[in-house]
Amino acid sequence: MIGLNVTIWNEFEAEQKNEEVKKVYPQGIHSVISEFLKGKINANTTIATLQEPEHGLTEEVLANTDVLIWWAHLSHDKVSDEVAERVQHHVLQGMGLIVLHSGHHSKPFKKLIGTTGNLRWREDDCHMRIWTIEPSHPIAKNVPMYIDIPRDEMYGERFDIPAPDSLVFISWFPGGEVMRSGCCFTRGAGKIFYFQPGHETYPVYKQPEIQTIICNAVNWAHSGRNAEAVSCIHAVDSPESLRK
Amino acid sequence: MIGLNVTIWNEFEAEQKNEEVKKVYPQGIHSVISEFLKGKINANTTIATLQEPEHGLTEEVLANTDVLIWWAHLSHDKVSDEVAERVQHHVLQGMGLIVLHSGHHSKPFKKLIGTTGNLRWREDDCHMRIWTIEPSHPIAKNVPMYIDIPRDEMYGERFDIPAPDSLVFISWFPGGEVMRSGCCFTRGAGKIFYFQPGHETYPVYKQPEIQTIICNAVNWAHSGRNAEAVSCIHAVDSPESLRK
Amino acid sequence: MIGLNVTIWNEFEAEQKNEEVKKVYPQGIHSVISEFLKGKINANTTIATLQEPEHGLTEEVLANTDVLIWWAHLSHDKVSDEVAERVQHHVLQGMGLIVLHSGHHSKPFKKLIGTTGNLRWREDDCHMRIWTIEPSHPIAKNVPMYIDIPRDEMYGERFDIPAPDSLVFISWFPGGEVMRSGCCFTRGAGKIFYFQPGHETYPVYKQPEIQTIICNAVNWAHSGRNAEAVSCIHAVDSPESLRK
Amino acid sequence: MIGLNVTIWNEFEAEQKNEEVKKVYPQGIHSVISEFLKGKINANTTIATLQEPEHGLTEEVLANTDVLIWWAHLSHDKVSDEVAERVQHHVLQGMGLIVLHSGHHSKPFKKLIGTTGNLRWREDDCHMRIWTIEPSHPIAKNVPMYIDIPRDEMYGERFDIPAPDSLVFISWFPGGEVMRSGCCFTRGAGKIFYFQPGHETYPVYKQPEIQTIICNAVNWAHSGRNAEAVSCIHAVDSPESLRK
Repeated sequence: MIGLNVTIWNEFEAEQKNEEVKKVYPQGIHSVISEFLKGKINANTTIATLQEPEHGLTEEVLANTDVLIWWAHLSHDKVSDEVAERVQHHVLQGMGLIVLHSGHHSKPFKKLIGTTGNLRWREDDCHMRIWTIEPSHPIAKNVPMYIDIPRDEMYGERFDIPAPDSLVFISWFPGGEVMRSGCCFTRGAGKIFYFQPGHETYPVYKQPEIQTIICNAVNWAHSGRNAEAVSCIHAVDSPESLRK
Repeated sequence: MIGLNVTIWNEFEAEQKNEEVKKVYPQGIHSVISEFLKGKINANTTIATLQEPEHGLTEEVLANTDVLIWWAHLSHDKVSDEVAERVQHHVLQGMGLIVLHSGHHSKPFKKLIGTTGNLRWREDDCHMRIWTIEPSHPIAKNVPMYIDIPRDEMYGERFDIPAPDSLVFISWFPGGEVMRSGCCFTRGAGKIFYFQPGHETYPVYKQPEIQTIICNAVNWAHSGRNAEAVSCIHAVDSPESLRK
Repeated sequence: MIGLNVTIWNEFEAEQKNEEVKKVYPQGIHSVISEFLKGKINANTTIATLQEPEHGLTEEVLANTDVLIWWAHLSHDKVSDEVAERVQHHVLQGMGLIVLHSGHHSKPFKKLIGTTGNLRWREDDCHMRIWTIEPSHPIAKNVPMYIDIPRDEMYGERFDIPAPDSLVFISWFPGGEVMRSGCCFTRGAGKIFYFQPGHETYPVYKQPEIQTIICNAVNWAHSGRNAEAVSCIHAVDSPESLRK
Repeated sequence: MIGLNVTIWNEFEAEQKNEEVKKVYPQGIHSVISEFLKGKINANTTIATLQEPEHGLTEEVLANTDVLIWWAHLSHDKVSDEVAERVQHHVLQGMGLIVLHSGHHSKPFKKLIGTTGNLRWREDDCHMRIWTIEPSHPIAKNVPMYIDIPRDEMYGERFDIPAPDSLVFISWFPGGEVMRSGCCFTRGAGKIFYFQPGHETYPVYKQPEIQTIICNAVNWAHSGRNAEAVSCIHAVDSPESLRK
């Protein structure tokens, strides 16, 4: 799989303002993601951030994107409705979308799933464990039966999402919570993967197994670009009459 | 099952403007639906229409609605975003929603499913046939293996919806089309049923089998009202620590 | 909901041989289940056990059963293939089936799901927690967001089942495991609910929340009895030709 | 995608006994399938037939098979239970399985899905039309919105299968029937695709669009081979205790 165009969108605030985060991701979360995507699946990566005009997500950028990765935490409201709807539109047309961590509350994700994305959460500096539920799913390729993440934020059920089309991972937390943490959705011609790990204060995206999952997700999500999006068709003639 | 509060929302334009429609539904489509619901399942029905202030769907009306039925065809854009979002909010809180026919393009439905709702269509004055795919689903109770509707509009695939949580009916059209015409979705605490038949120029809602399906759908959809909607919970204490 | 015919099948070995189990369930697990079903939903209960001729599951008994509850742990192989296939047949014809705990390895369940039912397990005398994933599902009615069971056996992922039609509960274990522990399947005209808790050495079925869930499951599963089972039909005439 | 090992199993009776079928498939249906698989996706194909010892499906053959294609019509009962269970076992271990046409009643398919596979059928020498329902699914790659097959047998609903994990195609028949005709299932580590067209008296498998779909299905189904099958694991130590 070579040459996919992956755009990585990052809110990019905490890495600039918060010393703790700066130490973990001095160049921003997007840089770490970009590096491993280029190294592991030869992706062509583009960076876009909240601060840029149109948040870096112009019509032209999205039209040239096979898969968009979305990381955001605190400033969902600063994303304009226009750009959020543009992202939604491109997903329905076949662009893949990978929503990471707090992106569960991002405007594009909520517009695509229709629910609140609410969940239970706690910052408690604890480890988490991710169980593979569908080992034959392409996103679980070369992923072991379970993965431990040394420290991450707790996100738990009830997670207010539609039942996913495929449930690939479930997370366990020592505080007593569980979460459907790796969820596939198809919307229009586009494929969406939500993946829970990745609080900004921990080096989660530097962990090899997490990188494997995100690479697999990019390879899985881009295939919507092969599909024809659906217009409303006034079929004046029926296929049956055309046949005769 | 007695005493459910069902609100029937109707665009109520064609029945007032179009002589052909007036002949079929002189009191409006909503009146026919209201009558059979009161007769068959003892529902308490409320009527709301586009023309009323807030389209008749005030916070108070929705808070007292177990199941909302939505019929609309041509004036989706006249529904205010505020009311559409209010309906979405109440569904996520557990109100049932039954979307009939052209409601596939209504604002509340599109907000809840996240896709365009686009499909293939043709007014050709032909019959259609509805096949029961899941005979043990509560909405298929007492519904035969197939139903013929003498005349209706053609709505066909590809229908741009998320894969439904349950696919109860598929329609067949003599022009060569098929459609997933009876589709269940759960969103938040709410249950949604989309049902395709019912062009305004044909007496589809007077047909007993169609009435049976809509009554079944009301009985199925209202149970979300038992469920607790999901807030975002900052779980400062973990269940595990509370336990000790 | 009154008068449902519920047959409770119990392997009924541990309660007779094992002193520890005898203390918890002196009259057998089936007696406890029968009592709360009669008390809470006015069910008519019948008991059947491994030791009876045809394991108590004659054609006549199954033909009069709306919902069959199955508890078994160690003697799956002692159930005859003939009786297992008879149970499968009746489920496909619309009888409900509730499979408890170690029933994941029972012959009827494996025949109906097609997979091994394998899972990860450990007897470690620990507590478990059950999270409600679909609060609007009828089986979750009046069930809180999570339930603690003071002590039970650990059953964890990967659980080798087909993706359930609805995933209602996920369990958490202090040892680091998770499990899809409340799973709905529709097979033929029949409805199946698998529910994980209930090791024989702990009084799990005496816990009120567990009883609520099993009562809800009986009310949910029996509705397949309304459905027409599917024969292979040689449709010599087409519906379309019959119409003309 | 190169070098996949595809085993094509054919009942291979009609082509030897029936002059009409011999004219359409003089070398057997398997030869036509083998040729286009070798030409289009560079597969390594192996032929196996009912008449061979162990029906050609020895442990060794299956262990070397990435995807098994199954065509059969009238002699399902001649397949030994032992071989049927061997096929089931290999699917659960990750072998892909593509079940064509009358294979809906084959022993391996029924063992894997748990239902009867019953349906409505008629030989009436009519055309059929296949609609693409999930255009972004890998099996629909390069497949148009609908395909016409000039003549085929009618297979219609209600088709007694579990709700598929993905519904990719629905068929339309001029006699008034519909069918879920392209259905994906995951069972254990294995992926299964059922595809309805292909009565032996018509040259359906020579049609390019049908060949595209079967090639896509092979590419989709083989990925289960990457997955680890699930044993029953007595996890004496918990992951949590191992961690400490």
